[in-house]
Amino acid sequence: MMNMINKLFASVALASILAGSVFAGGLLGFSASGLAQQTELEARFDKSLNAENLREWMRFLSARPHHVGSPKGKENAEFMRDLFRKWGYNAEIEQFDVLFPTPKTRILEMIAPERFTAKLAEPPVEGDATSGQTSEQLPTYNAFSADGDVTAPLVYVNYGIPRDYEELAKRGIDVKGKIVIARYGGSWRGIKPKVAAENGAVGCLIYSDPRDDGYYQGDVYPKGSWRNENGAQRGSVADMPVFPGDVLTPGIPATKDAKRLDRKSAPTITKIPVMPISYADALPLLKTLDGPVVPDGMRGALPITYHFGGGDGTRVHLKLEFNWDIKPAYDVIAKLPGSEFPDEWVIRGNHHDAWVNGADDPISGLVALLEEARAVGELAKAGWKPKRTIVYAAWDAEEPGLIGSTEWVEMHADELNKKAAVYINSDSNGRGFLGIGGSHTLESFANELGKSVPDPQTKLSVWERARANQMVNGSPAVRNELQSRPDMRIFALGSGSDYTPFLQHMGIASLNIGFGGEDGGGSYHSIYDSFEHYTRFGDRNFEYGIALAKVCGRAVTRFADADMLPFGFTSFADTVGVYVGEIVKLTDTMREETATMNKLIQSGMLTAAQDPTRVFVAPKPERPVPTLNFTPLQQALARLRESAARLDGALKERTLAPATQRELNAILMKAERDLLSESGLPKRPWFRHQIYAPGFYTGYGVKTIPGVREAIEQRDWIEAGRQIESVSGTLDRFSDTLDRAAKLAGR
Amino acid sequence: MMNMINKLFASVALASILAGSVFAGGLLGFSASGLAQQTELEARFDKSLNAENLREWMRFLSARPHHVGSPKGKENAEFMRDLFRKWGYNAEIEQFDVLFPTPKTRILEMIAPERFTAKLAEPPVEGDATSGQTSEQLPTYNAFSADGDVTAPLVYVNYGIPRDYEELAKRGIDVKGKIVIARYGGSWRGIKPKVAAENGAVGCLIYSDPRDDGYYQGDVYPKGSWRNENGAQRGSVADMPVFPGDVLTPGIPATKDAKRLDRKSAPTITKIPVMPISYADALPLLKTLDGPVVPDGMRGALPITYHFGGGDGTRVHLKLEFNWDIKPAYDVIAKLPGSEFPDEWVIRGNHHDAWVNGADDPISGLVALLEEARAVGELAKAGWKPKRTIVYAAWDAEEPGLIGSTEWVEMHADELNKKAAVYINSDSNGRGFLGIGGSHTLESFANELGKSVPDPQTKLSVWERARANQMVNGSPAVRNELQSRPDMRIFALGSGSDYTPFLQHMGIASLNIGFGGEDGGGSYHSIYDSFEHYTRFGDRNFEYGIALAKVCGRAVTRFADADMLPFGFTSFADTVGVYVGEIVKLTDTMREETATMNKLIQSGMLTAAQDPTRVFVAPKPERPVPTLNFTPLQQALARLRESAARLDGALKERTLAPATQRELNAILMKAERDLLSESGLPKRPWFRHQIYAPGFYTGYGVKTIPGVREAIEQRDWIEAGRQIESVSGTLDRFSDTLDRAAKLAGR
Repeated sequence: MMNMINKLFASVALASILAGSVFAGGLLGFSASGLAQQTELEARFDKSLNAENLREWMRFLSARPHHVGSPKGKENAEFMRDLFRKWGYNAEIEQFDVLFPTPKTRILEMIAPERFTAKLAEPPVEGDATSGQTSEQLPTYNAFSADGDVTAPLVYVNYGIPRDYEELAKRGIDVKGKIVIARYGGSWRGIKPKVAAENGAVGCLIYSDPRDDGYYQGDVYPKGSWRNENGAQRGSVADMPVFPGDVLTPGIPATKDAKRLDRKSAPTITKIPVMPISYADALPLLKTLDGPVVPDGMRGALPITYHFGGGDGTRVHLKLEFNWDIKPAYDVIAKLPGSEFPDEWVIRGNHHDAWVNGADDPISGLVALLEEARAVGELAKAGWKPKRTIVYAAWDAEEPGLIGSTEWVEMHADELNKKAAVYINSDSNGRGFLGIGGSHTLESFANELGKSVPDPQTKLSVWERARANQMVNGSPAVRNELQSRPDMRIFALGSGSDYTPFLQHMGIASLNIGFGGEDGGGSYHSIYDSFEHYTRFGDRNFEYGIALAKVCGRAVTRFADADMLPFGFTSFADTVGVYVGEIVKLTDTMREETATMNKLIQSGMLTAAQDPTRVFVAPKPERPVPTLNFTPLQQALARLRESAARLDGALKERTLAPATQRELNAILMKAERDLLSESGLPKRPWFRHQIYAPGFYTGYGVKTIPGVREAIEQRDWIEAGRQIESVSGTLDRFSDTLDRAAKLAGR
Repeated sequence: MMNMINKLFASVALASILAGSVFAGGLLGFSASGLAQQTELEARFDKSLNAENLREWMRFLSARPHHVGSPKGKENAEFMRDLFRKWGYNAEIEQFDVLFPTPKTRILEMIAPERFTAKLAEPPVEGDATSGQTSEQLPTYNAFSADGDVTAPLVYVNYGIPRDYEELAKRGIDVKGKIVIARYGGSWRGIKPKVAAENGAVGCLIYSDPRDDGYYQGDVYPKGSWRNENGAQRGSVADMPVFPGDVLTPGIPATKDAKRLDRKSAPTITKIPVMPISYADALPLLKTLDGPVVPDGMRGALPITYHFGGGDGTRVHLKLEFNWDIKPAYDVIAKLPGSEFPDEWVIRGNHHDAWVNGADDPISGLVALLEEARAVGELAKAGWKPKRTIVYAAWDAEEPGLIGSTEWVEMHADELNKKAAVYINSDSNGRGFLGIGGSHTLESFANELGKSVPDPQTKLSVWERARANQMVNGSPAVRNELQSRPDMRIFALGSGSDYTPFLQHMGIASLNIGFGGEDGGGSYHSIYDSFEHYTRFGDRNFEYGIALAKVCGRAVTRFADADMLPFGFTSFADTVGVYVGEIVKLTDTMREETATMNKLIQSGMLTAAQDPTRVFVAPKPERPVPTLNFTPLQQALARLRESAARLDGALKERTLAPATQRELNAILMKAERDLLSESGLPKRPWFRHQIYAPGFYTGYGVKTIPGVREAIEQRDWIEAGRQIESVSGTLDRFSDTLDRAAKLAGR
């Protein structure tokens, strides 16, 4: 599901100074002799990688639609299980029984001021062999839309996020009882119907505007890669920021006999019917809207004047009915037991289900994982014995809501709590720049990974090239930081792929790794995400697939064999410091802006600046932003910095006895668990991580220190105070753990 | 010609605190008794104003096309002369004989990859009575384009300003021998063919992209006000930043027998053929372009993927031939002699020629001037005797290059040098916010004007409403300044209307005044700039025309009757301080950015960040930016601040004897002359003002302290040093004059 995120990688990717020898300063967690062995292992690993495997597997796995519950989905799972077995793994399919709605009725028509019936279809295009497989394709729809049959006036709501409704309100436009049409972008799609329903809308259309995802960006398919006028973006709209996974079994595995919620009261199914449409279907509707002209910045690239509508001029009829079936989801789980520490698990996953053929999403990442697993299996067959257990996973049902991974995590929660040392995720992969997001306790480790893999297109390491990209295209703040900090900062994870249950529910340190930024977009969640599209516009020669296998193969084997688990805590403390600084600044900025705006409202100046011939409803003054007491957080941060520095120093300086190492590793692998809170985040207890969460109103986009940050954003000052206490306590517990570890290490 | 500038007013308009009584602190230049008289005079003046006159004059003056040399142009001039005479003025028409090319042949066709012939015509539209006057309309063309007949590949150059060519160069695209197509906007139109020719292009098309001037902005004519697909923007492309006025008689009046340049060597006629086209004519051409995709920010709103072209795929044929005729230009000059100081002139002007019917540009401003002159005439008939001579002017031939005003100024240069106290200009006028630009020695005076006129739509003064607009929509810097400074800062004048010869050639303190920001744009320089368009989308009830008459009528009568000429120098010194600060910062920023970019280039990082499958030509490193010695400028500024404070203090505190006042006024009215330099600006000696000039590469957009600023922008460090010396000398001379005045005033 991760294409949008993958594009993000390009701008926030990992990168650095044109460094000398990568291993000059050693390798985190390895002794000198360990390093020599590891270097030799990686050379053999690299040598066995073969891009042709990726190509052939992509051809096979994307040959037919393979969504949840499809015959091809099952075939792919079994194919992969058999490959893993062939490569020497203990491989099994684990089945979960999950709610997976598919459309029964889809009607969208305009009934005034003129009649128009939307096509709701993506036609086959010449030169794209799989685009004609209409009998097996899922039609364009949003999974977990409610059933509904509504006829109402239409209102354009831009991206359909909260601040768009503020603009509507200023113009006296209410969406109550109306159908909204939002363009894709600006948030994860599931936010749009959620906010629309909160505002009283009775239906929601989401269309791909060519400004964000069509001819404005580049030539359209099949001439170029970009979405053509008939392309529509499928996708889940379940309220995943509340909880992901099967919508009927929050927090527990969706086994055959699990106790399920009643569908009618399942909280993450949308309250109103929602459907994605193409810009060819949206244009006739948008053209007829009247009312105020949409302000610059909220307009798309269709050749019309964008109006908000909202009057009775344009009326549409939307009818949606779904088959609310329970379908089997097949997770493929392959294990290579550890020789020394079988109860320390290194987990590596990528999903296998797609909305249609999914050559890019997710097969491009999956085939890299397969090739990596094959090469690891070969090393093992040749006698290498990883110290820790390696677990490869190909998740099903990621697209409808990270379901395969979430159910598996919920099924094995106790075991994972005890055994999981790290989770490494990938998803779509493309040509371009390395991007790594994840736990900042793994930031130094991640930087080492990037420095040791060559970029396929230049003579640089993938780390150096990503850094060059940021030095050239990054914001001034990013460029400054790059010049003053040896490591590149990895980005914080929100959501959008299978790391979420591991990191944010279980507190397992995680990384998400991929390349992108130079491949042509536009096929995301459409029938045109095909082998032909990918091999013309994606990573044509699969050289970045190989690069991904190299980066993740290093991550897996280093984690599996390191003497000391390669965590580092100074970077984490430094990053938390950045987040705390952001939040303090956010509060100050809100305070100033609120005061300024209140003054403009109360003095009448805001109204005086408006065109009196147009409707203008001045917003109500906001309560002044109080002075929040951030001291507990700043104290906890200060302590964290000290504890992290002490522990990192100890790990760096001393060679510890194996028994001590073992004891220390047991602490380190679980340290991230201390960043969870028992009760979870306000209104969404499933999300327990106190540092990283998807935003309640962004969906994919991360909110760091989410309890505090979102309370402030939502002007809930009492909750903000509570959350400052809670996070401070969490950080103190984490520091306790670091202190315990440092003591063990002799400090 | 001023529509684009007028729009600008909306954002940089005058504004303030919701003030109490306006005259509580007195009125600049008036004694208490003078103030009472003036207040009574203004009340009578206001009372006699009648919006119906504006409507009827607009109907008459815009009834047929009235460009330079047209029968209707002459008829209008004579009509106004007769009105002025009726109102008691000594009114005459002064004729100049000026080069005014009109098209003979206009051919634009695409010959590859397909054939297409551009229509080059604006069709009549229903409900617009004058749009069908095809026999008298000037066709769409750019005046002072060279003749030419060229066939060449086409290249899209965005706005066609220097930094666009840097983007082309990075992509390995050269315009040498090619025809460029630029969109309107980003600079004055005449800059586009100039820069194109400097880069070796052989032809230039300028089209109105709907992003800037069409459906993206709002509904198109006749449904809404905005430019429809067939609208094209006429306009001059003479190189006016070198000199305006008749292109064959720079610096001297274009009398019948004037010594004229040979047209073939006239420096301000373009080097290549240039033509404006509509977006309906541009779309088929742009659609076929290949080559790199244009980056975001350089794309328009046509429903295509914007490509640069530049290969041989798209070839166009452009043939232009003009009638290079000398035409009569008729300036209407009306004088009301001063009773006490007949040799101190208050000059007030607006042009009367249009590209076609010109209801907005310029008739909307002109009818306000006429009503103002009528009311002033009535006051005089009723016994009022202005102390100083009032001169009303209706300029001809402004559109092709400020010709009527420039020739008149050049004709009367000696007399103006002796007698002109101030020039007050207007041009197009519309609904919305007051905007005033001009000499900062008139800033306090301008603020007083705005505070004493009520806004037609609210209960505020026009000054308060303009201030509210800036408080709400201004940049943070502007908002901060508004809160800490009692006066609003008036903006600096570049060019685009008839103040240029007065201010920038002659050193006559000038103001340019207008309302705008709430009227619908889109008719600029097209046949749709009609009475119907204006009365639907402009200042429907002419209430802002009346407001303009009130503001300018106050300016004229106050200047005519003040005991002391109402100049103030502290604001000027403060503003020069802002400009000096900007220039120092510009230099520092350039130094840092140059160093950073050179490092990226030299380290190879810039290239490493590019997609290797695309052409990328790294720019050459620039010479490091030296440390310029700004000390002379800062010293001159410090002295200026002191001298200004001393003089303003003296004028405020003391009541001077009439003879002293007279002597002082003689100094004050000429003080602005001291801001000229004998030799003018580098490469353009006609422009002599050292503080304000239109940018050599912006055209309309002002460059303040232009000699220094442009030398720095062009990285000519030696010239920058020379100009710092020159401007410092100018400021010192100006301070000498202020000191002389202060001494007279007893300081």
